[in-house]
Amino acid sequence: MKTRLCSATKEVIIGDELPTVLIGERINPTGKKRMTAALEAGDLEVVRKEALAQVEAGADILDVNVATAMIDEVVMLPKVVQAVMDTVDVPLCLDSSKPEALEAALKVYKGKPLINSVTGQKDSLRRVLPLIKEYKAAVIGMTVDDEGIPNDVERRVAIAHKIVERAEKLGIAREDVIIDCVTMTVGADARSALVTIESIRRIREELGVNITLGASNVSFGLPNRDLINSAFLAIAIAAGLNCPVINVVKMRPTVLAADLVLARDKNAMRYIKAQRQGR
Amino acid sequence: MKTRLCSATKEVIIGDELPTVLIGERINPTGKKRMTAALEAGDLEVVRKEALAQVEAGADILDVNVATAMIDEVVMLPKVVQAVMDTVDVPLCLDSSKPEALEAALKVYKGKPLINSVTGQKDSLRRVLPLIKEYKAAVIGMTVDDEGIPNDVERRVAIAHKIVERAEKLGIAREDVIIDCVTMTVGADARSALVTIESIRRIREELGVNITLGASNVSFGLPNRDLINSAFLAIAIAAGLNCPVINVVKMRPTVLAADLVLARDKNAMRYIKAQRQGR
Repeated sequence: MKTRLCSATKEVIIGDELPTVLIGERINPTGKKRMTAALEAGDLEVVRKEALAQVEAGADILDVNVATAMIDEVVMLPKVVQAVMDTVDVPLCLDSSKPEALEAALKVYKGKPLINSVTGQKDSLRRVLPLIKEYKAAVIGMTVDDEGIPNDVERRVAIAHKIVERAEKLGIAREDVIIDCVTMTVGADARSALVTIESIRRIREELGVNITLGASNVSFGLPNRDLINSAFLAIAIAAGLNCPVINVVKMRPTVLAADLVLARDKNAMRYIKAQRQGR
Repeated sequence: MKTRLCSATKEVIIGDELPTVLIGERINPTGKKRMTAALEAGDLEVVRKEALAQVEAGADILDVNVATAMIDEVVMLPKVVQAVMDTVDVPLCLDSSKPEALEAALKVYKGKPLINSVTGQKDSLRRVLPLIKEYKAAVIGMTVDDEGIPNDVERRVAIAHKIVERAEKLGIAREDVIIDCVTMTVGADARSALVTIESIRRIREELGVNITLGASNVSFGLPNRDLINSAFLAIAIAAGLNCPVINVVKMRPTVLAADLVLARDKNAMRYIKAQRQGR
């Protein structure tokens, strides 16, 4: 199953057997004082620099999120999306929990974006899916519902089925739904990552959809997080994850090595080229 | 299924859901000029130092191999095994392609060792399995037969079945056979690692046996081998590999991170302890 996304000038395809697509996670003020202060002051230079740095490091798509307590996302998300489009040519992933902010960003976006996200919650399904249909976008469906994040595989798989069914009923193609199985830290619940990995395998098998994941949560609160994130990322890619949301600078080497091991890098061309370029 | 190995004083258990058991690969002259020269001169100090270093780095078992063109393994393997037993207290894996050398080492070994290895080749089955039975050892069965290393999953799985059947027919318990699916470098054949990973999954499912693997071959001839080895090791452990033969100093962090992600490290105790000790 192939998900096609594009900017004004560039297409990216996510799909079986293709190399893993890297979604850059760094345009997001959470935990970043400097970016938060700049965004709150309406200064977009920090965002432009981060966009350039990630694309230079090999990001195929950039996630754009501006959520802070002080920012009106409906005003700010389209502005930042415009600034990123003016700076780099990769497709974008418009990221907000507010449907009005997503719609404002969809209005300025040129191409076919990814929307992050719809959930299995009643309100989210009702408000976000019609936007996907109207603006011909693709969407990330998170396996969360009105009762929270299920801690068992069956319920996560059931939510994925529900999101895909509701999308198809509205006339959204199944390939335009990418499922995010969500991970919590293994520091709090030892089985957390295992439930995610098994959910990924089941959802790929049963629905055939592409799979995304913000892989770095898995190590929250633990020492040497990059080591845990790398192992988890390699295992999740082998299970079916094919467009992770990651810190591209840190995690691209692991993704390229996993793709090489999984026969998605013919003659090791991509791996060797990246090693030569030192990234 | 649990494989129990022991030295004179220490037991190690390999099994489902248990933490991955690390077999240190470094007592092996291949590619090591200094160790080769020392062994050929009958000097065992290099071996003793290497044994200590690996156990300090966290090796649970040590593989002992003395094969060089100039050495008579029948004389040298038991000597080196004795020197290692005198230096460290972990169980050993006696490693030779020569049945006479294995028998000579079995005669001096105290405890229940692992033998590396029997293959699916007629001669190997006929000569090695009776030794396993007689000395009450456990054995590594390599998925290789008289036609070489199969490049498809079906034939590797078939060889594993054959080795297990032949062992059981002789009265060797199935839990005393550990299968090695063998990997060639992905630099020569892009599907090489994938065939190994899928073979591991199938053999675990069909036979229930424990699985070993010399994981470092996968990256032979490629740059930044540790990066590839780490990704491969994490993926193979998730597929069922539970006692890899590795460079413990380099690869233990990856194994501990994979075990943490796969819920084999309650409260992250082992991972956090290793991080504190800087290993």
